[in-house]
Amino acid sequence: MPNKVLQRTYEILEGTTNDKITKIFQYFIIALISVNVLFVIIETEESVLDEYGYLFTPFEVFSVIVFTLEYAGRIIVCKLNPKYQNKKFGILRFVFTPMMLVDLAAILPFFLPFVVMDIRFIRIIRLLRLFRLFKLARYSDSMQTLGNVFKAKAGDLSVAFFILFVVLIFASSLMYHAEKDAQPEIFSSIPASMWWGIITLTTIGYGDTYPITLMGKIVGSIVAILGIAVYAIPTGIMASAFTEELRKRKEQKNNTCPHCGKDITHS
Amino acid sequence: MPNKVLQRTYEILEGTTNDKITKIFQYFIIALISVNVLFVIIETEESVLDEYGYLFTPFEVFSVIVFTLEYAGRIIVCKLNPKYQNKKFGILRFVFTPMMLVDLAAILPFFLPFVVMDIRFIRIIRLLRLFRLFKLARYSDSMQTLGNVFKAKAGDLSVAFFILFVVLIFASSLMYHAEKDAQPEIFSSIPASMWWGIITLTTIGYGDTYPITLMGKIVGSIVAILGIAVYAIPTGIMASAFTEELRKRKEQKNNTCPHCGKDITHS
Amino acid sequence: MPNKVLQRTYEILEGTTNDKITKIFQYFIIALISVNVLFVIIETEESVLDEYGYLFTPFEVFSVIVFTLEYAGRIIVCKLNPKYQNKKFGILRFVFTPMMLVDLAAILPFFLPFVVMDIRFIRIIRLLRLFRLFKLARYSDSMQTLGNVFKAKAGDLSVAFFILFVVLIFASSLMYHAEKDAQPEIFSSIPASMWWGIITLTTIGYGDTYPITLMGKIVGSIVAILGIAVYAIPTGIMASAFTEELRKRKEQKNNTCPHCGKDITHS
Amino acid sequence: MPNKVLQRTYEILEGTTNDKITKIFQYFIIALISVNVLFVIIETEESVLDEYGYLFTPFEVFSVIVFTLEYAGRIIVCKLNPKYQNKKFGILRFVFTPMMLVDLAAILPFFLPFVVMDIRFIRIIRLLRLFRLFKLARYSDSMQTLGNVFKAKAGDLSVAFFILFVVLIFASSLMYHAEKDAQPEIFSSIPASMWWGIITLTTIGYGDTYPITLMGKIVGSIVAILGIAVYAIPTGIMASAFTEELRKRKEQKNNTCPHCGKDITHS
Repeated sequence: MPNKVLQRTYEILEGTTNDKITKIFQYFIIALISVNVLFVIIETEESVLDEYGYLFTPFEVFSVIVFTLEYAGRIIVCKLNPKYQNKKFGILRFVFTPMMLVDLAAILPFFLPFVVMDIRFIRIIRLLRLFRLFKLARYSDSMQTLGNVFKAKAGDLSVAFFILFVVLIFASSLMYHAEKDAQPEIFSSIPASMWWGIITLTTIGYGDTYPITLMGKIVGSIVAILGIAVYAIPTGIMASAFTEELRKRKEQKNNTCPHCGKDITHS
Repeated sequence: MPNKVLQRTYEILEGTTNDKITKIFQYFIIALISVNVLFVIIETEESVLDEYGYLFTPFEVFSVIVFTLEYAGRIIVCKLNPKYQNKKFGILRFVFTPMMLVDLAAILPFFLPFVVMDIRFIRIIRLLRLFRLFKLARYSDSMQTLGNVFKAKAGDLSVAFFILFVVLIFASSLMYHAEKDAQPEIFSSIPASMWWGIITLTTIGYGDTYPITLMGKIVGSIVAILGIAVYAIPTGIMASAFTEELRKRKEQKNNTCPHCGKDITHS
Repeated sequence: MPNKVLQRTYEILEGTTNDKITKIFQYFIIALISVNVLFVIIETEESVLDEYGYLFTPFEVFSVIVFTLEYAGRIIVCKLNPKYQNKKFGILRFVFTPMMLVDLAAILPFFLPFVVMDIRFIRIIRLLRLFRLFKLARYSDSMQTLGNVFKAKAGDLSVAFFILFVVLIFASSLMYHAEKDAQPEIFSSIPASMWWGIITLTTIGYGDTYPITLMGKIVGSIVAILGIAVYAIPTGIMASAFTEELRKRKEQKNNTCPHCGKDITHS
Repeated sequence: MPNKVLQRTYEILEGTTNDKITKIFQYFIIALISVNVLFVIIETEESVLDEYGYLFTPFEVFSVIVFTLEYAGRIIVCKLNPKYQNKKFGILRFVFTPMMLVDLAAILPFFLPFVVMDIRFIRIIRLLRLFRLFKLARYSDSMQTLGNVFKAKAGDLSVAFFILFVVLIFASSLMYHAEKDAQPEIFSSIPASMWWGIITLTTIGYGDTYPITLMGKIVGSIVAILGIAVYAIPTGIMASAFTEELRKRKEQKNNTCPHCGKDITHS
C-alpha cells in the first residue's frame, strides 16, 4: 500500500484532521454503534423479533465486517502514530491500550461461537455486544469526563463505599436478628437481609422486604435516618468532583486556539 | 385608532410602565391563567363536573375572547416596539417569537375543533389548554430562571443524562438476562426491564418490578449502589447552577436603580 | 409586689442572667415541654392509655398551671423590658410577639373546651397541644436557625416550589390521560393523579399508584428523570443556605466575649 | 523478657516503624478481622452452615487466641508508649482508650458465655462479634475520617436531626388523626404512624403504610414536599463536611515528608 493511502487512513481513523471525510467516517461509526446497541435491546422484544428478525443477522454481519476492518486498519496504521513508532513491541503496546481492547471486545462476540459451541456461553456472548457502547468513548467527551472523575476521586469514593459497607453489615445483621422469627422466609439469613439493607440505604424501598416487628421497625428507623448521612457522602463527592471536572474542561477549552486547537496559555 | 390610544395599549400590554392600570391588567391576566389551569385540572373530577359543569363552557369562551384580544392587540401595537419597528417582515418576526407562539398555543385549542372534527384529536387539544400555564412566563422570574439554568448547563446535563442512559442500558440488559426465566411476565424484554431500571436508578422503587433470583438481587444491588453516583451528578449540576443563577439575579437587582429600574453599574 | 421580686422574676423568665436558678427554671420548662409532647404522642397508644391513663389528666392540669403562671408572669414583668417600656400599648405589643402567641397557644387547648363544647372541636384542640413543642424555640438555637434559613431563602424556595408545581401539573395531566382507561379507579381525575405525581417526584414511590400501560410508563419514565432535576433545586438551595447560616452563627459566636457574651468586633 | 524483644513487639503492634514484619502483621490482622466478619454473616446461611459448619468453631478459637494475645501484648508493651509512660495509672488509662475497649469487645463475646449461661444472652453476644469490624479503624483512614466528620459537625447534625424530629412528630400526629378511622390497623397510634413518617421523610416509601383518605393524602403530599427540605439539610452538612475533611487530609499528606513521615510545614 502506498504511503499516501496509509497516511490518509491514519488521519481518518485517528481523527487527527478535521476534514469532511473524517467527520463523515466518525458519524458513520457513531450511528453504526448506536443502531447496534438499539438492536441488542429491541431484539429481546418478541413482537419486534417476529416481524423484523430477518434483518438482525445481515446487520450483525455487516457491523462486524465494518468493525473488523476498522480494528485491522488501526493496527496497520499504528506505525504512523508517533507514540508507538520506533518503539520495541510498538504494535503490541498499541493492541493492549484500553480503547483497542474495547474494539476487540466489540467484534469478539461474533467470532467466539465459531471456537466454543456451548449454548449458554453463546447467550452471555450475545450480551457482550453491548460493550460496543464503549466504542463511543473515543468520540464522547462525557464518558472520558466520567472516567476522569472516577480516577480523581477513587480514594474518596472507596472511603464512602467502605462506610456504606460497614453500615450495611450492621444494619443487615441487626435486622436479621430482629425479624428472623417473624418473617423467616424473607429474613432467612444475614446475606438475605443485605438485600433489604441495600434497598433501604439507597432509599429505593421496593416494598418486597420490610420489618413488621416493633424491634425491626426501630432498627429500620435508625438505619433509615443513618442512611441519610451514608447516602450524602458519595453524593457530595460525586457532585463536587463532577462540577470541578466540568469547570476544568471549560477552562481548558478557553485556553485552546479556536483556529488550530492548540494550547494558547502564555507560560 | 389614534396614536395616543395605540401608545397606551402598547405600554399596558408590554408592561413598559409601572402605573396602576398596567398592574391591574397584569394581575387580571395572571388570575385568568391560574383559574384556567385550575379548571383544566378540576373538570376531570366527576363530582365537580356534575355540579359546576355548566360554568366551564362560558368561562372558556370568556377566557378565549380575552386571550384572543390580547394576542391581536400585541400584534397591532408591535410596530411601536423598537425591536421590530422599521424592519423587514417586522410583524412576522414578532409573531414567531417564543412568547407569541405560546400565546397562540393558548387560544388555538379553542379554534382548532372548528377545523378538524375528529373526537380523539379534540381530546388531546383539550389537554393543550395546559400550555396557557406558560403564558405566566411573561410575568414570572422563576420560569425565566429555570430557562436560563437549562440553557447554561445544557452541555453538562446532557453529559449527566448520557451517563444515566449508558448505566440504564447495561443495568436493564443484565437484569433481563438474570430474571427473564424467573419472572417472564415482568422482565419480558430489555425495553420492559428499562422500566425497572429507571424506577430503580431514580430511587423511586414502586415495587411493581423487582428481582427475585439471587443473580437478579446481586445485579440489583450493584445497580442500586452505582445509582447513588449516577443520581448525584445531575443533582450536583442542577443545585450548583441554580444557586449560581439566583446569585447572579440578586447582583443584577442590586445594580439596578430603585427609582428608574435602569442599570447603575459604573463602567 | 416589691420591685426586687419583679426584677428577679424578669431575670429568670427572660434568661437575662446566667445564674443557677435561671438555668434550673429553663431546664424545668424544657423538660415539662418534652414530657408534654411525649404524652400527646403515647396517649394514642391504647396499651399505654389503659395502664397509665389516670396520670394524664393530673399531669395536663399541672402543666397548664405552670404554663399559665409563666405566661401571666411574662406579661406582668414585661414593663421591665426596655423594648416595651414607656411605649404606647407596650403590653399589647408584647402580647402579640410571635413567642407570646406560641405561649398562649400552648395553654389555650385546655381552656377552650370550657367555652365551646363541640366534641369534634375538642379533638382538634387536643392536637393543638403539640404546638407546645414550639415553646422550645425560645431555648433552642436550631429552630431559630431554621427560621432564619426559611426567611433568607423564601424567594429562592418559592421559585423552586413553583417549578415543582408546574412539573407536577403537567406530569399529572399527562399521566391521567395515559392511564385513565386502564386504571379508572386510581387515575380517576387529574387531582387524583397528582397524588401519584407528588409521590413520584419526591422519589418516595409507595407503590399504591403506578402506570401499567406503555404510554403511562413512557410518561412515568420522563417524569422520573425530570424529577431528578426538580428535586435537586430545593435540595441545593436548602443545603447551601443551611451551611451558610451555620457558618454565620459560628462567626458570630467567635466575635462574642466568652466572659460577658457581648459582641467584641472592633469596628 | 529482655528489653529488645519488648521494644520490637511495641514497634510491630503499634506500627511505629514501616518494616516488612510490621506490615505482614498488620495485613494478617486485617485479613483475620475480615474473615471473622464474613463468618458471622455467612454462618446464618443454613446451606453454608450444613456444609462448612465444622470449620466455624476451630476458626473462632484460633481468632480469639490471636486477638487475646494481641490485646495482652498491647497492655504489656504500653509502658514503652511515651503517652502512658511515667504517668499515674498509666496502664489503666491505656486500657480505657476507645481502641483498647474495642479490642476487648472483640474477645469478650467468646469468654462471657463461660460466666453467664443464659441462651438468649449468648445469642446477642454472638452478634457482638461484629464489633471486631471496628478493630479495622486502627488501620483504616476512612473510619477515622468518618469519626472526625461526626465530631466536627456534631452540633450542625444535631440541629438537622432535631428539625427532622419536629417535622416527624407533626407529620405523624396529623396523619394519625387523618387516617385512624380509615385504617385503624396501620395508623393505630401516633408512635405507629411515626413508622410511616420516617419511611416517607427518608423517601424510602416501602408501601406497607400510606394514606388512603383525601385528608391523609393532602397531609402526605405536604409532608412529602416538606421532606425535600428536611432531607436536604443533613445531606448538605454531611456532603460539605466530608469534602472538607478529605481536602484537609490531602493537605496534611502534602505537608508530610515522604521520607520520615513527619510534618514539614515551616511555621
